[in-house]
Amino acid sequence: MIVKTKGVYVMSFASAVGTKEGEGPLKNRFDYIDKDDRFGMNTWEKAESESARLALSLALSKAPMAPSEVDLLLAGDLENQCVASCYGLLSFEIPYLGIYGACSNLTEGMAIASMLISGGAARRAAVVTSSHNCAAERQYRNPIEYGGQRPPTAQWTVTGAGGYILGERGKVKIVDCLVGVVQDKGQKDISNMGAAMAPAAADTLLRYFKESGTSAKDYDLIITGDLGIHGSELFKDLCKQSGYPVGNHADCGMLMYGENQDAHMGGSGCGCIATVFGAHFLPHMECGKLTNVLLMATGALMSKDSITQGQNIPAVAHLVHLMYGENETGSRPCGSAERRNHE
Amino acid sequence: MIVKTKGVYVMSFASAVGTKEGEGPLKNRFDYIDKDDRFGMNTWEKAESESARLALSLALSKAPMAPSEVDLLLAGDLENQCVASCYGLLSFEIPYLGIYGACSNLTEGMAIASMLISGGAARRAAVVTSSHNCAAERQYRNPIEYGGQRPPTAQWTVTGAGGYILGERGKVKIVDCLVGVVQDKGQKDISNMGAAMAPAAADTLLRYFKESGTSAKDYDLIITGDLGIHGSELFKDLCKQSGYPVGNHADCGMLMYGENQDAHMGGSGCGCIATVFGAHFLPHMECGKLTNVLLMATGALMSKDSITQGQNIPAVAHLVHLMYGENETGSRPCGSAERRNHE
Repeated sequence: MIVKTKGVYVMSFASAVGTKEGEGPLKNRFDYIDKDDRFGMNTWEKAESESARLALSLALSKAPMAPSEVDLLLAGDLENQCVASCYGLLSFEIPYLGIYGACSNLTEGMAIASMLISGGAARRAAVVTSSHNCAAERQYRNPIEYGGQRPPTAQWTVTGAGGYILGERGKVKIVDCLVGVVQDKGQKDISNMGAAMAPAAADTLLRYFKESGTSAKDYDLIITGDLGIHGSELFKDLCKQSGYPVGNHADCGMLMYGENQDAHMGGSGCGCIATVFGAHFLPHMECGKLTNVLLMATGALMSKDSITQGQNIPAVAHLVHLMYGENETGSRPCGSAERRNHE
Repeated sequence: MIVKTKGVYVMSFASAVGTKEGEGPLKNRFDYIDKDDRFGMNTWEKAESESARLALSLALSKAPMAPSEVDLLLAGDLENQCVASCYGLLSFEIPYLGIYGACSNLTEGMAIASMLISGGAARRAAVVTSSHNCAAERQYRNPIEYGGQRPPTAQWTVTGAGGYILGERGKVKIVDCLVGVVQDKGQKDISNMGAAMAPAAADTLLRYFKESGTSAKDYDLIITGDLGIHGSELFKDLCKQSGYPVGNHADCGMLMYGENQDAHMGGSGCGCIATVFGAHFLPHMECGKLTNVLLMATGALMSKDSITQGQNIPAVAHLVHLMYGENETGSRPCGSAERRNHE
C-alpha cells in the first residue's frame, strides 16, 4: 500500500564518484571526482568504503550538520555482507540500520527513512549507498584485470556513492512511497540486469498508478535507477501493454556515461541512481523546474552462488514520490505547483 | 535515541530448524525439525531458503492469516546478497524490505517493523531471518566437508529460521527500541565472534540504561543473541566495569545446544536468536512468567574479503524492549505487571 508521509524533506545531498563517471556528461555536477578510482586506498573494497564516507561527510558539511544531529543512518551496497557501507560509515557513530535491496537500496532507504521520520521515530535520517566497478565486477563476474569481453546487454557498474540527509526542511519533499514486491520472471543472464529488473519496475509503478488513481501524465517525470537502454525499453513496453504508457521516463543508467564511453547499455550499481538523481535531477527539483517526480530504484537480488546453482534473477523496485515545495501544503494537483528559478 | 512504540504486538511466531538443533535441549519447542538439514533441496543455500519459507508459512498458519494480510516483510540472512531470504520468501508476494545486520537481523527487523507499525506506515509486518550451518561455514570459513579443526572460541552456526508477525494484537507487546551504533574494538579473529560482538551489545545496553534511567534489575531478563560462553563473559565484564552489572542475562547461543553436542562456545547465526527467543522465551512471556525483557541481537559485520584484506570485525546490536500485556496500557513500572498462567 502507498504510505503517505508528512514533514519529510531532502535536506542535503552529496556525491563522490570515480574517474570514468567524472569524464561523462554529468562531470560538472558531482561534488568529488577521484583521480584513479582508488580513493587513496589499497583495495577496491576499501576504496568503495571511502567513497561512501566521503559522500556522507560532504552531505553533512553542505547541510551543515554534525553527525550527532542525525538520528539514523540507513546504508547498503553490493559487496558481500554490505561491508562497504559498514566500514566506510563507522566513524560517524550514527545509529546504523543496514539495508539490502541491491541497486534498489536508494529508494528502499529513502522509503524507510521517510516513513520513520513521518511516524516520529526519527527527526533526521541519512541514506547512503555506493558501488564500485572493480569491486562489483570481480565479485559478481570476473576481475577486470582478466579483460573479459562484455556482451552487448551488459551495463557498467558505476563507481560512486551518494549521501542524502532527510529531515524537517528543504525544497523537495517526499510525499509518499510504495515498497516493492519481489518479481521473478525467469531471467537468468548475469549480463542482462535490465531484463531482470524491468518487470519489477513495471510492477511497482502499475501498483502505484492503480492505487493512487493516477497515470504517467500526472507527473513531470518517472525516473528509474539503472534499467539501461534495453531494460528501459522492456519497462516501457510492459507499462504500455498494461494500459499505462510512460512517455516521460528517464533512466539514471542512461545518463551517466557518454556514447563514446563504452558503457554498452549504460550505468548500473547502487551508486548509479544515488549519484545521478542527486547530482542531476535534485537540483532541477530544488529550483522548481521539476515539481512532481516518481523515483524508482530497481535491484536484482541474485548472488554469484545463486547463479551458479541455476537460480533465476529476481528483482525488486521501491518507489518514492517527490514534490517541489518548501512548505507542507498536502498533495497538490500536478501542474499547479509554482515554478521559479533557483535562488 | 530510544523510540517508544504503541500498539505493536507479537501476533505469531514459528521456527524451522535443522537436525542438530532438533537433538538439543529445546527439541520439543520447535515447530519443524528437518531430518537431514537439506529441507528437501539439493544445495545448502536452497535449503536455507526453504527453512525461511517454512518459518513464515507456519507463522502465518498459526496466526492464522493470509500473506495478503501482512503489509510488509523485513528479512535478511548471512548469505552473500541475502539470497536465502529473497528466494525463500518470493512466493508470499508481500512488499519486501531487505535488511542486513548479520546476526542482529532479528532485532533490526523487529525495531524497524515496530517503528513503522507504531507510526502508521503498516498494520502488520513479518520479520524473518535464517542461517544454515553448511551454507555459512563454506562461505565465511571452509566447507564443512574439509573437516577443518575448530578453535575453542568458535561457535556453531545454527541451521534454522524464525518467522515473526507483528501487528495489532497479541500477548507480548513491543514498547520501545534502540538502534545500535557500529562498534569496532580491533577484534580480527574470524573464529571468535563473541569477542567481536560483546562490545556492541554492551554499548547498546549501556546507552539504553543511561537514556531510560534504568538498570538491569528493572527487567526480568536481558537476552542476547549469540555471544556464546566467551562473548557473554566479556559482555558482562564490560557492563560491570561501566557500573551497570547484569546478573539476569541469558544468551540464546548458550541455550541451543547441549554440552555433549560439540558446539564449543554455543550457537551463532541469525537463526539462533530467531528460533531460541521465539521457541523458548516467547512462550514464557505469553503466559506471563516473564513480563519485562530486553532483547538484543548482535551482528558481526565482516565479510570473507574484508578479513582477507586485514580489516577488523565491527559489530552492532539492536535492542527491543518487550513486555507481557494483552492491552495497551502505556509503560508500566517494573514488577507491577500482573503475572498469570497460560490460558
